[in-house]
Amino acid sequence: MTNDNEASPPLDAGETIETTLAFRPRFGPDGLIPAIVTDLKTGDVLMFAHMNADALTSTLATGLAHFWSRSRAKLWKKGEESGNLLKVREVRTDCDQDVIWLAVEIEGHGVACHTGARSCFYRRVIGSGVKSGETSLEIAALPQIKAPD
Amino acid sequence: MTNDNEASPPLDAGETIETTLAFRPRFGPDGLIPAIVTDLKTGDVLMFAHMNADALTSTLATGLAHFWSRSRAKLWKKGEESGNLLKVREVRTDCDQDVIWLAVEIEGHGVACHTGARSCFYRRVIGSGVKSGETSLEIAALPQIKAPD
Repeated sequence: MTNDNEASPPLDAGETIETTLAFRPRFGPDGLIPAIVTDLKTGDVLMFAHMNADALTSTLATGLAHFWSRSRAKLWKKGEESGNLLKVREVRTDCDQDVIWLAVEIEGHGVACHTGARSCFYRRVIGSGVKSGETSLEIAALPQIKAPD
Repeated sequence: MTNDNEASPPLDAGETIETTLAFRPRFGPDGLIPAIVTDLKTGDVLMFAHMNADALTSTLATGLAHFWSRSRAKLWKKGEESGNLLKVREVRTDCDQDVIWLAVEIEGHGVACHTGARSCFYRRVIGSGVKSGETSLEIAALPQIKAPD
């Protein structure tokens, strides 16, 4: 399945993409929709990837996060080799339905990043410019946001 | 300023984009980098947008979130008209430096979405298919993730 927006039934009269309760994911011209992945318990952003319609379908059908690997040009079941599967606990979309947010629990070793870090976002930007020498990165622990016990 | 990756000094020997502490944001062929915005205190995803190099520069220089409005094709200081400015408390980048994560506090009325919702992600996907009738949306409160007191 590719971009099926054209085949989706129209919204009801008076509805907009912002107000409808119909799920009408809007894939881009490349057939992809961006997906933000956060940790269900802590709210930390773990990773960011893209889904095509097949990946979104597989994610909803299996409860495990699937993406479209742009570098390998294939469906990508996250953690299939490493065991670090992402169990999807909640799926959201945004006001204009062109972004997906997955709240997940990580299986296996609790690692979401290919570097071995729990989150891909292990570096903080410091400094106030973007020219070389004005801004750099530092390794940072994830924010201290914790779910209530 | 547009995509200045070409002008950036090379990484040091033995460094990779994943290991360097040099900030080398990788803008796409369209000159844009995706930006995820979360609430500093709760971890909720508030919105998702894109930055060009000017928007990233302005964000770092002012501490207020700036994006590139693709629909209006102009620099967009978030909240400039509504007063719902986004005060940037932390900026992160991911392993391959092609995504930006901003942790923010919302000024004004505490609203990040143009619909008036606090977060753009006010609808949860329910159901397990993506064909019409198998999957729909429901209005959902933000997850109960709270910062420690």
